[in-house]
Amino acid sequence: MIYPEWLKNYQRATFLADLSAGLIVAVLVIPQSLAYALLAGLPPQAGLYASIFPVIAYALLGSSQRQAVGPVAITAIMTYAVLSPLATPGSADYVALAALLALLSGVLILAFGLLRLGFLSQLLSRPVISGFISGSALLIMLSQLPLLLGLHGAEGNRWRVLQELVLHPQTVQPVTVLLSGVAMLLLLANRYLLGPQLTRRFGSALTVQIWVRLMPLLVVAMATVLVVWFDLDQGSGVTVVGPVAGGASLLAALDWHWSALQALAGPALIVALIGAVQNITMAQALALKRRERIDTNSELIGLGAANLVASVSGGMPVGGGLSRSAVNVVAGAQTPAASVVTALTTLGIVLVGTHWVERMPLAVLAASIVVAAISMLDINALCQAWTYDRADALALLGTALGVVVAGIQVGIALGIGLSLIALLVRASAPHIAVIGRIPGTEHFRNVERHGVHTLPGCLFLRIDESLFFGNLNAVEARLCSELAKRPDVGDVVLILSAVNRIDTTAMERLADYNRDLRDRGIRLHLAEVKGPVQDRLQRSVLWRELSGSTHQSVHAAFEALAHTEPVEDYHI
Amino acid sequence: MIYPEWLKNYQRATFLADLSAGLIVAVLVIPQSLAYALLAGLPPQAGLYASIFPVIAYALLGSSQRQAVGPVAITAIMTYAVLSPLATPGSADYVALAALLALLSGVLILAFGLLRLGFLSQLLSRPVISGFISGSALLIMLSQLPLLLGLHGAEGNRWRVLQELVLHPQTVQPVTVLLSGVAMLLLLANRYLLGPQLTRRFGSALTVQIWVRLMPLLVVAMATVLVVWFDLDQGSGVTVVGPVAGGASLLAALDWHWSALQALAGPALIVALIGAVQNITMAQALALKRRERIDTNSELIGLGAANLVASVSGGMPVGGGLSRSAVNVVAGAQTPAASVVTALTTLGIVLVGTHWVERMPLAVLAASIVVAAISMLDINALCQAWTYDRADALALLGTALGVVVAGIQVGIALGIGLSLIALLVRASAPHIAVIGRIPGTEHFRNVERHGVHTLPGCLFLRIDESLFFGNLNAVEARLCSELAKRPDVGDVVLILSAVNRIDTTAMERLADYNRDLRDRGIRLHLAEVKGPVQDRLQRSVLWRELSGSTHQSVHAAFEALAHTEPVEDYHI
Repeated sequence: MIYPEWLKNYQRATFLADLSAGLIVAVLVIPQSLAYALLAGLPPQAGLYASIFPVIAYALLGSSQRQAVGPVAITAIMTYAVLSPLATPGSADYVALAALLALLSGVLILAFGLLRLGFLSQLLSRPVISGFISGSALLIMLSQLPLLLGLHGAEGNRWRVLQELVLHPQTVQPVTVLLSGVAMLLLLANRYLLGPQLTRRFGSALTVQIWVRLMPLLVVAMATVLVVWFDLDQGSGVTVVGPVAGGASLLAALDWHWSALQALAGPALIVALIGAVQNITMAQALALKRRERIDTNSELIGLGAANLVASVSGGMPVGGGLSRSAVNVVAGAQTPAASVVTALTTLGIVLVGTHWVERMPLAVLAASIVVAAISMLDINALCQAWTYDRADALALLGTALGVVVAGIQVGIALGIGLSLIALLVRASAPHIAVIGRIPGTEHFRNVERHGVHTLPGCLFLRIDESLFFGNLNAVEARLCSELAKRPDVGDVVLILSAVNRIDTTAMERLADYNRDLRDRGIRLHLAEVKGPVQDRLQRSVLWRELSGSTHQSVHAAFEALAHTEPVEDYHI
Repeated sequence: MIYPEWLKNYQRATFLADLSAGLIVAVLVIPQSLAYALLAGLPPQAGLYASIFPVIAYALLGSSQRQAVGPVAITAIMTYAVLSPLATPGSADYVALAALLALLSGVLILAFGLLRLGFLSQLLSRPVISGFISGSALLIMLSQLPLLLGLHGAEGNRWRVLQELVLHPQTVQPVTVLLSGVAMLLLLANRYLLGPQLTRRFGSALTVQIWVRLMPLLVVAMATVLVVWFDLDQGSGVTVVGPVAGGASLLAALDWHWSALQALAGPALIVALIGAVQNITMAQALALKRRERIDTNSELIGLGAANLVASVSGGMPVGGGLSRSAVNVVAGAQTPAASVVTALTTLGIVLVGTHWVERMPLAVLAASIVVAAISMLDINALCQAWTYDRADALALLGTALGVVVAGIQVGIALGIGLSLIALLVRASAPHIAVIGRIPGTEHFRNVERHGVHTLPGCLFLRIDESLFFGNLNAVEARLCSELAKRPDVGDVVLILSAVNRIDTTAMERLADYNRDLRDRGIRLHLAEVKGPVQDRLQRSVLWRELSGSTHQSVHAAFEALAHTEPVEDYHI
């Protein structure tokens, strides 16, 4: 496993592609790595460290050929949400807690993978994931407002900054606003005007894609040059990244307390779950394009190991990055060797280039984060869910609102809760149809939708739902109302072609109905019982006491009952 | 509603039956009412008061003709579990809290009824209810051990008494043990030997039933006579009921605090839910025997009102009592008038007979509680669930164990949680069958169970489960493994006859498969899409992009695809 498949059959031609892709990714994602570290409330170098050793660990253990891991927006904002109540962002304690969070979520993800619990990731439905990402994007934008405007002291509370802005507009720093405004305009124009324009003209050629992805780096570099040139960080109120600890302190101070472990256990589970789901979703999407298959569990092992390595190398929790992976694919990466190249290049940059990083203006990094967050807002998913299934759209909105108003953990819990409730509510109101025979055929349809024949004295009821404790009342209510409408009925046939399971409660309730109907002189029949359902029912009291018969098909039941009674035309 | 249906057409013949039944119930259930008050940690008169005014309220508002409400074992043990951490059992504060608990759960049950939320009661599956009742029975037996053995100071912790018994067996009171031992032997012999014997000889005649039910009263009366005769409560260490406050203090002191309200809100919801479910279940069972129907919501209104009245008349939370209702039915009650007679008789007993109650030995009351609890243990339900559905049996066991080990609230939460998880786990592993045509028919069956015809190059896959976010991985895995087995397949037909819903996640995943298969040169077809599912799908991306066709029936799909390819015999 440590000596992975791709390394065994490695070829020279592939290496050249991987080398150039790795170099491109390393350079392009540097501003992003720094920005996400700041988003997480960590010193900037944490983002760089997280782009080195965890990346190598994932390359050796992960199953995706072209996914690139590293600091990602979602994990960064979750880290901030979890840790900021526990320690001052940027402090040594905070850095140690971030490492502990990476350790715990790494251990959990690794455990998910080793215990083959990859299937758990499907607990999060697409609307919930989409709502979560959109909500997080809004949260990220809100969190960057103080940096964009040069406001100080309002970082802690996301609503404080809006209040500050309305009450004391004079605290806004003009030079900072100018810098971030121009940067944001450039980045937005690049992404939404220039990019599509170039793509339309030249197709999605490599150079176009690289150019579009290069813009954030250019903007940050130009802004840094401006800062250095005019000494904007000396008197004009422009905040810069500031002192970066050298490349030597790779191991974070390990002064973790038992209480910290307790406080972080729950959040780490959420970080692990979200990280795992995001990673698997993206790895699957990337694999689909190349007709490869992802082994969910070895994917989790790779991601878990990457987080473990991040924790001991002074990094932050990592995940599969969307834009990082996109650059990797576009730049032509063929195997995980590209990621190894990226990691080594980043290591070189850390060792020689930190003095440039120190004078990068925070406002411009914040602008690049906000523009990235805008592309995370998935309005399209909301519209699609709304047209297709309102309940899913509501789960999406609930999750997004929950994340923005009450925080990431509440949002995700709300989303899962809403999906489960929607599932139960739908299953508790089953579709039930009275059916009859289409004249001259062996086909049976809903009497309300088709002109069909029915048998007098017989009620054919098709239940389109597995029977369980939550929907027996609905079935009973429908049965009673149909019987009340037709007092002549002497035979009730339940058609179970769409009943995939009958649980204990449902079986006992059906046995109750059977007794009740028998005492009223009505026989209960079952038709089209599925194999697995029948296997169970044969051991049940319902089967032993059934007053009527069981029939292989509705047709057989109809024929058997028709021998005693003439066919009647049903008028709809 | 206050002037109920049964009162309008009331007849003299019915009145005589109701009068005698009401008198019998009043006399027979007196030991029970006292015992359940003590079980709840309340002074004995609380049980008597709860058998007066709440009973009248229920008679006027409830929908069941013969159910008798009053103090019941489950509500009593729940009251003790909820209140004992908050106040000293038996103290004035404790009594006030019990009244508050009755008030809150009464308001909640009333609200359930008025908001027509009766359907919520089906959230508790039968295995969970059964496990809950059995677990509570064990808890009740444990709680009575100190009284049976005459141990003091170990009432608080249910494990303490066992420890005390092993470490200091000398603290056991010999006279108390003799008294409770003889009482328990008499009661057990009556219930499990004499009762069945008499029934076998004389049939289930009224007199036999009354005699069997009379025994607890006789045993308690004899024991009380012994106590009075030999002054056992003076030096022999036999604890008796003790001073009973007179019949005047019907209103409990209302010194409720806001904090108490907060502490009781959650528990009151559980008490209300369990009380409502137990009451509805029993009312339905009683109604079924007489071909009457229960209106769930007016049943809740009656029970809620009974609890409200209990709270202001110095009582305790009440519910539909199993043995109380059984006595009522056996004694020949025809209408709720019987309950009114019971209530008025009990009021008379309270006004004149309390000095006898004061010298009843607690050990004998405890013995009657334990014997009642034994009959609540439902081993039969466990065995039935075990043969029919292991998952339900595990939910039952989990609930029972949870109640005994971690308490009533944890147990019930665990039970609901386990049922929901079982539901999800089952739905996430759908039954999927490759099918073919039974030669010479229009019927299609599983290729593994029947000798059927298949079409070369076509894969017919029937999915027996609604598709949702939790089971798409299983569907994808099966599809991939079938395609790997047959690389010649050019058409995949998904048969959706048992798919009652496709949620947004599932629809999007199917759209992904559709694209993926199309790129591999494989067409995806859908057959037997249900009406409601089709209504939704027509608005979806899957429908617009579907590479194959949709077919009304599997037969139609088979015929359409057979025109391009010859029929092949499938060998199983």
